[in-house]
Amino acid sequence: MTNCLLASTSTLHGGRYLDYLFNPLTDLYKATDEILFIPYARPGGISHEKYTQIAQHAFQNIGKSIVGIHTLKNPITAVQNAQGIFIGGGNSFVLVAELYRHHLIQFLGKVVSSGVPYLGTSAGSNIMGPCIKTTNDMPIVYPPSYDTLDIIPFNINPHYLDPDPNSTHKGETREIRIKEFHEFNSTPVVGLREGSWIRVLHKEIVLKGGGQSARIFEKEKEAYELPVESSLTFLK
Amino acid sequence: MTNCLLASTSTLHGGRYLDYLFNPLTDLYKATDEILFIPYARPGGISHEKYTQIAQHAFQNIGKSIVGIHTLKNPITAVQNAQGIFIGGGNSFVLVAELYRHHLIQFLGKVVSSGVPYLGTSAGSNIMGPCIKTTNDMPIVYPPSYDTLDIIPFNINPHYLDPDPNSTHKGETREIRIKEFHEFNSTPVVGLREGSWIRVLHKEIVLKGGGQSARIFEKEKEAYELPVESSLTFLK
Repeated sequence: MTNCLLASTSTLHGGRYLDYLFNPLTDLYKATDEILFIPYARPGGISHEKYTQIAQHAFQNIGKSIVGIHTLKNPITAVQNAQGIFIGGGNSFVLVAELYRHHLIQFLGKVVSSGVPYLGTSAGSNIMGPCIKTTNDMPIVYPPSYDTLDIIPFNINPHYLDPDPNSTHKGETREIRIKEFHEFNSTPVVGLREGSWIRVLHKEIVLKGGGQSARIFEKEKEAYELPVESSLTFLK
Repeated sequence: MTNCLLASTSTLHGGRYLDYLFNPLTDLYKATDEILFIPYARPGGISHEKYTQIAQHAFQNIGKSIVGIHTLKNPITAVQNAQGIFIGGGNSFVLVAELYRHHLIQFLGKVVSSGVPYLGTSAGSNIMGPCIKTTNDMPIVYPPSYDTLDIIPFNINPHYLDPDPNSTHKGETREIRIKEFHEFNSTPVVGLREGSWIRVLHKEIVLKGGGQSARIFEKEKEAYELPVESSLTFLK
């Protein structure tokens, strides 16, 4: 009964927070009035309160109210009673550490599997895969585990970036990093470019978005592209 | 008695492995014939053997022999008996996980503190700071801790990259990532550009290299630049 929208980014260059997702969000949350926002990833270290205000402002446009989980007494009960959930981006290590600290990992998984509509952006999308081992973030805190919700059977690499052919920089490209991941792990990885998202509805997983393909990495295979509207259900 | 050279990168664009460090390495290892190479970081997932061959080839140019730690029976004894040590770059998480697995963290610290000459590049430089929380690498394995050797009292961010003013990409810049680190930690961070290195001799720590300044990040301060030949000993 899963019903998720997992976006690469919250904001496109020149756009406002979530505005390119206006139509799919209206559809995702059509039966939801109030959405539980989990601001734990704290982009740029901003406070939970400030981050929640940004989400509230954006959701006014589709006529939904947002409640920050940090304002509620019991985060477990808050998740269990939610009509809809949104986890925004920021730092994946901070997000996962906080989810473990509040004992939320298992409850979130149950609630999302039961069909409560879920929106994730960036780090919030990452955690729907088996682990955060393909995050781009800096490990600024040490979480008790890298294991996440395993709602989809592959990992997402959000903000996927193609190598710059003119670069003289010797740091690893994103593709090299994901190939390194496959030296030690076998989970497939979807390189999700900005403007793209993944729609999970019941057992169907489909690539959506503004026209860019996604780059697919499977262990011991050459990386390849899949166009928008491709099913990703086969990736395991 | 510490005697370390900590480089941002092993290789400059258009150059060969370690060739821009020819002179400072000749000086670092002037009293050393045989250098213990620790290939655990496995760049791009290559084997320990192949990685060691790359190092052997480069060190022929300064007339030193290289022994890979993976060819020796007891890695702890190998470190304790080393005349010189080199840890190359790759993935910091893989490197740190392997150092812990072989119980090497404490022994390495003792040996380096006793004055055995040490070369680190990229991940191999990172681990001389208090922790790997400012690595750029993907967390492809889960190490038992992020704590490292604490030989220098600040963290290095190797391959430091300035923000691209023309970028439309919404992923975090390096500077934003390091600022996020300081929301949760107080250790200073040196953004070390490619071509730069840090020379640690006894208690003196000096920025060296091909002319580029380093970018210094301290908690609750604006980031600033320090030119080559600056002392970094004050950073704590």
